[in-house]
Amino acid sequence: MSQLSLANPAPSLADHHTQDRNDVAALADQIESAGGFPATPTSGTIFSRLAERARRLEALDRVCRKGFRDADADCLRAAQVLLAQIYAERLRVPTGAGIERRPSAEADDIAELIESYLLGFEDRAVDEKVVASAPRTGTAMARWMRELVERHPATAHPFYTDFMRRATRRDLEYYSIQETTLDPRFDDAMALLQLGTPDIAKMEIAKNYWDEMGNGEMDRIHTKLFQTVLNVFGITPSAVRQQLRTESIACGNLSMTMVLQRCHFHKAIGYYGVTEYVVPFRFGHVVEAWQRLGLDPAGLDYYHVHYQIDADHGSAWFDHVVAPIVDAQPETAPLIARGAMYRLNSSERYLNRLLSDVSGGSGHA
Amino acid sequence: MSQLSLANPAPSLADHHTQDRNDVAALADQIESAGGFPATPTSGTIFSRLAERARRLEALDRVCRKGFRDADADCLRAAQVLLAQIYAERLRVPTGAGIERRPSAEADDIAELIESYLLGFEDRAVDEKVVASAPRTGTAMARWMRELVERHPATAHPFYTDFMRRATRRDLEYYSIQETTLDPRFDDAMALLQLGTPDIAKMEIAKNYWDEMGNGEMDRIHTKLFQTVLNVFGITPSAVRQQLRTESIACGNLSMTMVLQRCHFHKAIGYYGVTEYVVPFRFGHVVEAWQRLGLDPAGLDYYHVHYQIDADHGSAWFDHVVAPIVDAQPETAPLIARGAMYRLNSSERYLNRLLSDVSGGSGHA
Repeated sequence: MSQLSLANPAPSLADHHTQDRNDVAALADQIESAGGFPATPTSGTIFSRLAERARRLEALDRVCRKGFRDADADCLRAAQVLLAQIYAERLRVPTGAGIERRPSAEADDIAELIESYLLGFEDRAVDEKVVASAPRTGTAMARWMRELVERHPATAHPFYTDFMRRATRRDLEYYSIQETTLDPRFDDAMALLQLGTPDIAKMEIAKNYWDEMGNGEMDRIHTKLFQTVLNVFGITPSAVRQQLRTESIACGNLSMTMVLQRCHFHKAIGYYGVTEYVVPFRFGHVVEAWQRLGLDPAGLDYYHVHYQIDADHGSAWFDHVVAPIVDAQPETAPLIARGAMYRLNSSERYLNRLLSDVSGGSGHA
Repeated sequence: MSQLSLANPAPSLADHHTQDRNDVAALADQIESAGGFPATPTSGTIFSRLAERARRLEALDRVCRKGFRDADADCLRAAQVLLAQIYAERLRVPTGAGIERRPSAEADDIAELIESYLLGFEDRAVDEKVVASAPRTGTAMARWMRELVERHPATAHPFYTDFMRRATRRDLEYYSIQETTLDPRFDDAMALLQLGTPDIAKMEIAKNYWDEMGNGEMDRIHTKLFQTVLNVFGITPSAVRQQLRTESIACGNLSMTMVLQRCHFHKAIGYYGVTEYVVPFRFGHVVEAWQRLGLDPAGLDYYHVHYQIDADHGSAWFDHVVAPIVDAQPETAPLIARGAMYRLNSSERYLNRLLSDVSGGSGHA
């Protein structure tokens, strides 16, 4: 029954858009429920399989265009959720029926396509003049990075410096849920970031990794300390799934994009340098709110350890990762600056969203 | 001039094969000279780009079939060299003109295709009855693994136990060249292997990584100690490129296949457990040869540190990585055993090749 009639009207453009978005969402659901991306089918020819893939990528391209270019919130979320599912599989030990299933290389086509829109979106938010002005010597660049971070509105954001003074228990629960897109895999981000790096930078990133691993003490593994934060509120995976904002997923995805492909290495060291350097401007306010509310102090270890360690890490990162690389390759300075801007801008967007939610915007219930 | 004539005879099937293999070799050369895989072209439609890709993958498929299935040495080498080039880019900080170039997702299609042949080749060499007999409890599995390794002809291979007694300086140089496909990136292999692993296993692999990183001492980073080995002989990258045997490239590729996709995680912990456990059976003979020949003792640090550390690592790996995972998921035992067999068999093939080369086979000049 392919013939069109009044009973079967031709689908409108809007219907096509909805169908595209639903297909993208369905693929993300399929990856989650099956524990991973489908394997490459064994039937058909290489040509027929890639022709099918092209059709799916063209639909995804339309969804990305509407989401990242035309600010369609539903399309943006569908694309970000799909990318998050693809990335999650790369950072997860397989289990169950799919324990040996290699995700089809189609997953990398999908990641490449979404990443191109995601980075294009970030690039449009970057002030090119600032990036171009990054100094070409290590010491000057490290100083410039510190000033860049200290000046940016994301760093001492009012969500931390102001709102935390009146945050409720529910607000902190909501905040902890949003933080799950990076904090539980920070050790893995460091492990990926150090791949193939030169000596001094490698050792500094390795030290970050080893600190994340509690310097060999099982009870001090940072991801375990973060899990304790979640346990204080009884936060479940399904609560995370339901309440994660698109801006939180976006921060998690951008953090992983930076480390999953070596082509982003120089941006990544700017990005993660900022990530560590801003912590002392922020976590102290969380600790105060935590204590004011009389929450279980077991959850504070995570904040204390980062409050102390990251004050050192952030500064050491600029001196021991950024500076030697800029001295060796001065042309990388604008890339490093660009990555720093990615983090500052995406973090600001994220905190603006949280502040709006908890201050009577769309709410967080 | 597409018309066929006697002056332009139709190419024979053999010519097609040569053309396919030359195309594969040319792509590997292009990746090496450009510092990475080409980016996805921006011209054309998604469909037209994937149609072009399908044609290239079909040619590669023919080369792999001849190489891995029909034992064509030239095709096997072309496919292995291409995979090695694709993997190298994933473990290298970008430089030069391609510093921001994301390798096209086509690289993952190519890797997936070659990996499927490479793992099929290893699977055909595995004794399925041995794999199926792997115990389903942690303690028993750890014991079984030790016995498996100690019994296998690869472990105390005559290349080490016998030939090393009469090896010349040139033989040790040749051997050091062949070892470059895994040793200089062992830390990165550990960093990849630990991604997303559960607590106890993660900490054991992290300790391996941190040992590789000299426990934070720059001069004790194992990859630097290995570089000292190469320096003793004045081994250059171009010497490595010219003298690497296909069996050496194959070992390096298999080692990376195991860690670059999480779907191989369980095979990988068997694979790397064996890799560490066999070291004490082998490196002592290298040390003796080194001393007998009066080579620069600076190069011995690498062997000493592994001779001591890996005796602990290998055994701890079976107890702290393999055993808890088998106890938690008994169905993974055959996968772990399969990975162990991959390492034992590929290592035996590699050492047989080296022994043949240095014992008057094809020589190593």
